[in-house]
Amino acid sequence: MRKTLGEIAKLVNGTVVGDARAVITGVSGIKEAEPGDITFLANPKYVPLLATTRASAVIVGHDAPECDNNLIRTEQPYLAFTKVLKLFAVQLPPPKGIHPTSIIGLDVSLGKDVALHAGVVLEDGCTIGARSVLYPGVCVGQGARIGADCTIYPRVVISKNVSIGSKVLIHMGAVIGAQSQPANLLDNGNDESTEKTVIIGDDVEIGANVTIDGSEVSPTIIGSGTKIDNLVYIGGAAVLDSNCIIVSHASVGSGCKIGKGVIVAGQASILDGITVGDGAIIAARAGVVEDVGASQVVSGFPASSHEKWLRIYASMKRLPTMARDIRELEKRLRRVEELKDAKTENH
Amino acid sequence: MRKTLGEIAKLVNGTVVGDARAVITGVSGIKEAEPGDITFLANPKYVPLLATTRASAVIVGHDAPECDNNLIRTEQPYLAFTKVLKLFAVQLPPPKGIHPTSIIGLDVSLGKDVALHAGVVLEDGCTIGARSVLYPGVCVGQGARIGADCTIYPRVVISKNVSIGSKVLIHMGAVIGAQSQPANLLDNGNDESTEKTVIIGDDVEIGANVTIDGSEVSPTIIGSGTKIDNLVYIGGAAVLDSNCIIVSHASVGSGCKIGKGVIVAGQASILDGITVGDGAIIAARAGVVEDVGASQVVSGFPASSHEKWLRIYASMKRLPTMARDIRELEKRLRRVEELKDAKTENH
Amino acid sequence: MRKTLGEIAKLVNGTVVGDARAVITGVSGIKEAEPGDITFLANPKYVPLLATTRASAVIVGHDAPECDNNLIRTEQPYLAFTKVLKLFAVQLPPPKGIHPTSIIGLDVSLGKDVALHAGVVLEDGCTIGARSVLYPGVCVGQGARIGADCTIYPRVVISKNVSIGSKVLIHMGAVIGAQSQPANLLDNGNDESTEKTVIIGDDVEIGANVTIDGSEVSPTIIGSGTKIDNLVYIGGAAVLDSNCIIVSHASVGSGCKIGKGVIVAGQASILDGITVGDGAIIAARAGVVEDVGASQVVSGFPASSHEKWLRIYASMKRLPTMARDIRELEKRLRRVEELKDAKTENH
Repeated sequence: MRKTLGEIAKLVNGTVVGDARAVITGVSGIKEAEPGDITFLANPKYVPLLATTRASAVIVGHDAPECDNNLIRTEQPYLAFTKVLKLFAVQLPPPKGIHPTSIIGLDVSLGKDVALHAGVVLEDGCTIGARSVLYPGVCVGQGARIGADCTIYPRVVISKNVSIGSKVLIHMGAVIGAQSQPANLLDNGNDESTEKTVIIGDDVEIGANVTIDGSEVSPTIIGSGTKIDNLVYIGGAAVLDSNCIIVSHASVGSGCKIGKGVIVAGQASILDGITVGDGAIIAARAGVVEDVGASQVVSGFPASSHEKWLRIYASMKRLPTMARDIRELEKRLRRVEELKDAKTENH
Repeated sequence: MRKTLGEIAKLVNGTVVGDARAVITGVSGIKEAEPGDITFLANPKYVPLLATTRASAVIVGHDAPECDNNLIRTEQPYLAFTKVLKLFAVQLPPPKGIHPTSIIGLDVSLGKDVALHAGVVLEDGCTIGARSVLYPGVCVGQGARIGADCTIYPRVVISKNVSIGSKVLIHMGAVIGAQSQPANLLDNGNDESTEKTVIIGDDVEIGANVTIDGSEVSPTIIGSGTKIDNLVYIGGAAVLDSNCIIVSHASVGSGCKIGKGVIVAGQASILDGITVGDGAIIAARAGVVEDVGASQVVSGFPASSHEKWLRIYASMKRLPTMARDIRELEKRLRRVEELKDAKTENH
Repeated sequence: MRKTLGEIAKLVNGTVVGDARAVITGVSGIKEAEPGDITFLANPKYVPLLATTRASAVIVGHDAPECDNNLIRTEQPYLAFTKVLKLFAVQLPPPKGIHPTSIIGLDVSLGKDVALHAGVVLEDGCTIGARSVLYPGVCVGQGARIGADCTIYPRVVISKNVSIGSKVLIHMGAVIGAQSQPANLLDNGNDESTEKTVIIGDDVEIGANVTIDGSEVSPTIIGSGTKIDNLVYIGGAAVLDSNCIIVSHASVGSGCKIGKGVIVAGQASILDGITVGDGAIIAARAGVVEDVGASQVVSGFPASSHEKWLRIYASMKRLPTMARDIRELEKRLRRVEELKDAKTENH
């Protein structure tokens, strides 16, 4: 496949800096790239590699320094890169067919060319879209719906009444729609409920052993294009808008409202019921206990302005010195005071 | 179902404030509640909703403010609410029957109306109590015992010689009794051991992808009524007493002794071998490295008194200012000293 | 089995303090040990038990105090103890045979006495070494290779092209080789790739619900003898050398290089691309954002020298007092200044 840099910039909603007609024929890591490849730079640590990479273009953020490379500048370089990866991926014909050991309930609807591997369990009334592949041991609950072109890796469990869009990737061991019992119990015997407990958009990616809780009070929602890394916790009735990135071991509490393009870095946590505005960044290990405005960057615990925390961290390193300085000042001041007292006495 | 507020207060071991004869006919969230419903308030953030909720009664903690609503005051409002939820839940007839693809070992004992879904594996010598439901892919190891009326969600793994009480709920992907090998290997060929590696009480709830390690030196114990949220880690030989709440991503080290009604908030961790007294609260993200007394509230890392940490956090925000203040004081003091020196020289 | 303390010290690469000819006939916990047993001490909290244990010998670290017990001093007492546990373990004959419900793909190679439990799925082209046991529901992807004498617990998923050494233990629910899609998509239709995405050495132990991501840019590597606790995250292309210990809920970022014998304690995290030298210790909850030299001990976030952090923690507890002290000094200084001014005016 051949694409110009301008065509790719359009796809990822970015701006070309350099030659928009440069021809891109492949995708690679910044160190491994050859001429013709496009690569990306998300970690400031790798800025020096801009000078040495052989890539024909680099996808970078708005904060990357000026340089001689052809660039696409964009809000979220890594997200843009994953889109380009998909563009250049050779579409292998997916595995097809229904393995004889898969268990299919009543009133199940299977799209064209669906693949069900060994031991897949589809409970009554669920729907699987065209060309979706369910790997061994995947379990889909009653009334759940999976869109077209999804890849559901081994041992994923999708609970009753969960709804999943198209082109969604769910990695091994992830659990979608647990914990919706209490609300479930409230539905007064109406087991025919078609209310969705979790709604997942298109092009979402969900990491291994992630848990996304359901809720029947109001659905848990994961917006299109959002990427969730391994071992993340998403509470029931939380709403994540499109194109968010949630990094490993992070935790988004029940009932949170997370805006578009929000980044929640590793091991960060957001308390139940918090609202986070569009484009905000929750730094690694931040513990968010109050609402975060659009485009704000917060860190620390309790989380507040990242810049403030950088100053606090810097001061923390000087804490032992500060303690000593205070003792020192006290001594010097006492000497001055004594001298003064002595004089007063002398008078 | 109709219950008076007084009857409900008795069930949850709480005290009525207001009209004990008020009739409750349903359960709901504080925002969604209608007259006749009971609701709960656990998060101080929602205190203002007390004034606007249409609920006929609210379950609150001892720290909730006085108000005009009918209240039940109790130690742990959320726990109390889950009990009330169960009370009002319409008992749907659980799914029944043994799916033909379930695998049942030798000497397995199945209670009345047990349901085994597709691909359930019961190893030799295990026991499943009456009316318990095991969803697809659940795996129960040799000699394990599950009580009556349990719900075990898809892909849960229950290891060899684990013992589980009745009315227990285990969510998808949870792993009970891993890591007991080293001790297991010590049992000198006595494979007939009936010693339990993990003992779980009645009415326990265990979240998705939780891991509870076993131990054959002394059993890991989860007391009745305890609720464990998703992705929690419980180390081998840890003992949790009844009615504890362990929030997502928290970690209770091997050999810990956790008292009755202890709350371990999200991402908190308790070092191996620590003892935590009854009713203590470990705040979110606290890292506990020494024993915690009964009813103490601790936070921070290393964890100590929550109040002390609130003061420390407050001071931390002033740290950059403090550093500046110290420099300022030093300058002013130097000026005073110089003046003094000048005078001394003048003399 | 009978071994002298000297023989055991050799096995664990340790030094005997006391009687190297002492005969050891078993292994036990420090409290439970009887004469003839060897035990271990890793937690300083248990140092007082050295005086009361009935064990004939104790494996300790270099920092343990001098005492009257027979000791083996070694770098990592817990790791040494697990080796001794294996030495004394009575080798039960492992379960054998191929359960009729296991699914075996094309061109699968099974070593002598392999055991496949119910519902195991082996995809095309994978290899299982002699005497390895795969418990119910284990799923092994295309072209993956598992060595001899491995124990793979229920519901573990091993992805396509993963390579696992011999005597490896993988606990329930662990996921090896997720998330390698982007790179996978790059391989231009060459589905016959024999490149390994994850390579795991011999004698490795991997905890329950761990996720180890794969990468086809360069393989993720787990060195021989390394132990990984439950719910740990290992990023793609990370390289961990031999005999590391990674404790529960810790996170090692993509592309990290971790040296020999490194300890990463609970809930610690290491940012993508970081290098950690041999023998370094990352303390509990540390957040590592820059390279760590060999044998360094780091803690805190952002992580730096452990000793420095101990001083910082100590100072933090005094923070509220420091704030008060500064206010106090300011007041005293103002008084001195005013006096001085008054005098100046008097002149």
